[in-house]
Amino acid sequence: MNITPNASYSFTLRIEIPNRVGMLSQIMAAIANSGGDLGAIDIVQASRDKMVRDITVSAGSEQHADEITSNVAVIEDVNIINVSDRTFLLHLGGKISVNSKIPLKTRDQLSMAYTPGVARVCNAIAEDKSKVYSLTIKGNTVAVVTDGTAVLGLGNIGPEAAMPVMEGKAMLFKEFGQVDAFPICLSTQNTEEIIQTVKAIAPTFGGINLEDISAPRCFEIEKRLIEELDIPVMHDDQHGTAVVVLAALLNALKVVNKNIGEIKVVVNGIGAAGVACSKILMAAGVQHIIGCDRRGAVYKGRVEDMNVAKEWYAEHTNFEGERGTLVNAMKDADVFLGLSGPNTCTVKHLKQMARDPIVFALANPTPEIQPEDAAPYVAVMATGRSDYPNQINNVLCFPGIFRGALDCRATKINDQMKLAAARAIQSIISEDELSADYIIPSVFDRRVGVSVAKAVMDAAYETGVARRERKSSSGNTVAPLPTSV
Amino acid sequence: MNITPNASYSFTLRIEIPNRVGMLSQIMAAIANSGGDLGAIDIVQASRDKMVRDITVSAGSEQHADEITSNVAVIEDVNIINVSDRTFLLHLGGKISVNSKIPLKTRDQLSMAYTPGVARVCNAIAEDKSKVYSLTIKGNTVAVVTDGTAVLGLGNIGPEAAMPVMEGKAMLFKEFGQVDAFPICLSTQNTEEIIQTVKAIAPTFGGINLEDISAPRCFEIEKRLIEELDIPVMHDDQHGTAVVVLAALLNALKVVNKNIGEIKVVVNGIGAAGVACSKILMAAGVQHIIGCDRRGAVYKGRVEDMNVAKEWYAEHTNFEGERGTLVNAMKDADVFLGLSGPNTCTVKHLKQMARDPIVFALANPTPEIQPEDAAPYVAVMATGRSDYPNQINNVLCFPGIFRGALDCRATKINDQMKLAAARAIQSIISEDELSADYIIPSVFDRRVGVSVAKAVMDAAYETGVARRERKSSSGNTVAPLPTSV
Repeated sequence: MNITPNASYSFTLRIEIPNRVGMLSQIMAAIANSGGDLGAIDIVQASRDKMVRDITVSAGSEQHADEITSNVAVIEDVNIINVSDRTFLLHLGGKISVNSKIPLKTRDQLSMAYTPGVARVCNAIAEDKSKVYSLTIKGNTVAVVTDGTAVLGLGNIGPEAAMPVMEGKAMLFKEFGQVDAFPICLSTQNTEEIIQTVKAIAPTFGGINLEDISAPRCFEIEKRLIEELDIPVMHDDQHGTAVVVLAALLNALKVVNKNIGEIKVVVNGIGAAGVACSKILMAAGVQHIIGCDRRGAVYKGRVEDMNVAKEWYAEHTNFEGERGTLVNAMKDADVFLGLSGPNTCTVKHLKQMARDPIVFALANPTPEIQPEDAAPYVAVMATGRSDYPNQINNVLCFPGIFRGALDCRATKINDQMKLAAARAIQSIISEDELSADYIIPSVFDRRVGVSVAKAVMDAAYETGVARRERKSSSGNTVAPLPTSV
Repeated sequence: MNITPNASYSFTLRIEIPNRVGMLSQIMAAIANSGGDLGAIDIVQASRDKMVRDITVSAGSEQHADEITSNVAVIEDVNIINVSDRTFLLHLGGKISVNSKIPLKTRDQLSMAYTPGVARVCNAIAEDKSKVYSLTIKGNTVAVVTDGTAVLGLGNIGPEAAMPVMEGKAMLFKEFGQVDAFPICLSTQNTEEIIQTVKAIAPTFGGINLEDISAPRCFEIEKRLIEELDIPVMHDDQHGTAVVVLAALLNALKVVNKNIGEIKVVVNGIGAAGVACSKILMAAGVQHIIGCDRRGAVYKGRVEDMNVAKEWYAEHTNFEGERGTLVNAMKDADVFLGLSGPNTCTVKHLKQMARDPIVFALANPTPEIQPEDAAPYVAVMATGRSDYPNQINNVLCFPGIFRGALDCRATKINDQMKLAAARAIQSIISEDELSADYIIPSVFDRRVGVSVAKAVMDAAYETGVARRERKSSSGNTVAPLPTSV
């Protein structure tokens, strides 16, 4: 597959060339003819005879970057000094840092932030443990916890290799939710050990974001931690995806003018995200869901190739007991929700669907069906990719949902809070703006995080899981000043 | 005890007073007469009739602050609107934050720092795990781990109440060692569970600083983690103190012109720090040490009131088998090292000592003997306090020692590295500068961290625990650029 050149495959060529007219344009032509996207051109060193230049190029893949480099290298008199990968350069030394909020330059500052002054603050918390929320980082801090077993589409790559993703997640938490998040990558993949470890480190954190933990362990780990901790715990791969899918679906249904209580939804790919999506869709009013795997529909009584997720589907969906392949299941379906792998859906499948089909093909990086192929047969289409309209991206959910949960000191993130998050994301797009190509806001839409946080906090108060005394409508979330010495 | 007014007990009075001449000077007089130290005076609001002012005052204790406030409150026409404690204000919301090192404002930045670009970085680490050091935060990140059992002098106050100290420690790591440190406060006090938890979270970190864990569990926890992890683990209460004590002692011995191989040292207070100090003193050449507790000298064969630390003393010190009280033990001692409690040493004890006694009275906040009382009888005196000369403060050691260990990717912090750290601290003070009042540099002396880090790194290379290929003498510690796309 030919992917459009993009920044994630960009690199910088440092080349030495003779200082003569036409040399640079020859190189630029070679890059363009190889399909590379030319970025910045900088001079590193110049003399009467020679020039050293840095040329930044975007490619579509690693192989493509190699091709471009080779096509430049063969030009006569061109000497390639170095090829540096911009994505790797950006990762050098890691992507986050821990910083003091206050200076520590004088004796007075030291004696207030550390000994002896800090002892009085410690004593205040020892006397009233709830003060840990106002007097430490706990109230704004989330652990991003993984065991490295299901990282992106890469599988079980281990805790060290998972670090760059968890650091990226921490960046997104800060950028879109003003949450201080810290990666915790675990050296164990044992369910009980993960639960015990997270419980042991919980005092530092105001919330736990579980990430990229493979099914079925992720279900047990999340369930147990929700029960056994008094801070919100959420497995983002499940619920972040579910919230954003619901938000997009609510808008897509408006576009095609269908009622959520009457639609038939086919979920292809039954893992952690599939279960969570189906649960939230049902909570929002969907009555008719059929889950499919490679064998086709999951139904009550099926015995082959089952697991805990599929047992849930057999029990809670497909009440008419439909059997057969994915093609059969898609007969008269209003919505196809793909959470499986590349190219598992064809035009033949789409032709089975009811009028104005809604197709969410969320496999990454290659969707269940390419939007170009699906276009003639669908009314609304969404993918997980940023280079097509309607990107379903968890970052629309998790920063705001934890922001809201932290601000009211929620003990958990319950279904009502997730539904509220979905409706908040949905409602960012006004009736006037809504269209088949715009059912979900951009990840860079700054209104999303704020709106999600507020809706989630309101839902937490309404359902009684918020521990913080509710503030006046001014929206002030700053703790009151201590009024005694 | 009357402590000098200081910033750790400073507070701000917000008062409303009539706008007339002489009002403010009456208030200032009341504060001065109460022994308060006047700081900033700000105008909050002014009208023809009334003034609202913020007056910042340092007190010597909470009670003292109350007294000062009362003495201002009784002045006619003074209305106290609010009293705010500056130390608590400084702690609101916590003292550290997690930040992105790079902006995340555009699609290109997102696609390099997160999906899809990050996947290539993950794969590179999965293929070669050692790359986690250059491509993530691991190589510059230390966990500050506590179970909250021995926090400052406050005892077992639990993990939440320990947070302000651990955050303060993280600030010191950054300020004096450019290390990113993160607090991990544990909800378990069980030795095995602590060991398992730290092992489980270790992939994220380049080092583990154990903090404020009570004896004897701290010995087992540190020992096992050193054995079972491939990153440096150090219990700072033991070894940080030991390193700084040794540094100060080496200089003190120069002042009194004594040879380390010939001195007699009495250690009063036998806990984790006592054992570590004695070990490093012996490693540096001290032959004659006697450890004392409330019962007096510890000797081989003593059976009453023993524990693991005292067994170590019985085995490794006091080879002449001296018995008796602290007063007896101090006969002809050259050095008194107090790691016990307030006022456990008197002039009577000091009079027993050899010529030119060296007294380190490190109990905090109240030393074993007040420097004013000891002065006529000692040649060199040090305390743990910032308001007397010669403050023994761990912050002289831990930022630099971890900086050095991280920079060379040491697998552990061994005895040679600790000795090197002590000598580096000692040698900051030149022969010309050295005096009885200046045997240890200020915590704000910026040369200390750099010098300790370099010495520690050199020792790590010499003893074969450094994993990073040694750089040229340019001191460049930046990773080489990746040279392939």
